[in-house]
Amino acid sequence: MVYLIVVYGINVNRIDAVRKFLKTYLTWIQNSVFEGEVSESQFAEIKTTVKDLIDEKQDSVIFYKLKSRKLVDKETIGTSKGEVMNII
Amino acid sequence: MVYLIVVYGINVNRIDAVRKFLKTYLTWIQNSVFEGEVSESQFAEIKTTVKDLIDEKQDSVIFYKLKSRKLVDKETIGTSKGEVMNII
Repeated sequence: MVYLIVVYGINVNRIDAVRKFLKTYLTWIQNSVFEGEVSESQFAEIKTTVKDLIDEKQDSVIFYKLKSRKLVDKETIGTSKGEVMNII
Repeated sequence: MVYLIVVYGINVNRIDAVRKFLKTYLTWIQNSVFEGEVSESQFAEIKTTVKDLIDEKQDSVIFYKLKSRKLVDKETIGTSKGEVMNII
């Protein structure tokens, strides 16, 4: 298993589909962040499906992969809700 | 030194100030992500200043802190430019 932090910048036309898919594997942490533990084969599947769902010329998804959740300390300032938007 | 990944969801009224500040310590990776190596005292300063710049009731900033950049594998799908917006 690996620990994933997924951060994305995706056009509003495609974002709902990407979020709906990522929710099947990961936890929605903040507006543009998902986290969770997955197997290497699930990680491969996530990348393949995300590639299909986004427009690679316009959108961007970063996968940070850690061997364990314990390797990262996390601190949050402000609201912990995922509803904040960078652009209004 | 520690390696920081900073992800934020910040109202458009305050985002320029936060980005301008973070750029003095870190590298802008994507619309809502900064990364970089800083000392523990710089990390403390970053948190204090970010707290001053944001509205903690509306905005959210997550700091992922790693002992080393080497502990995380990073893969990017799509554009590497930081100009993509989640909301249009």
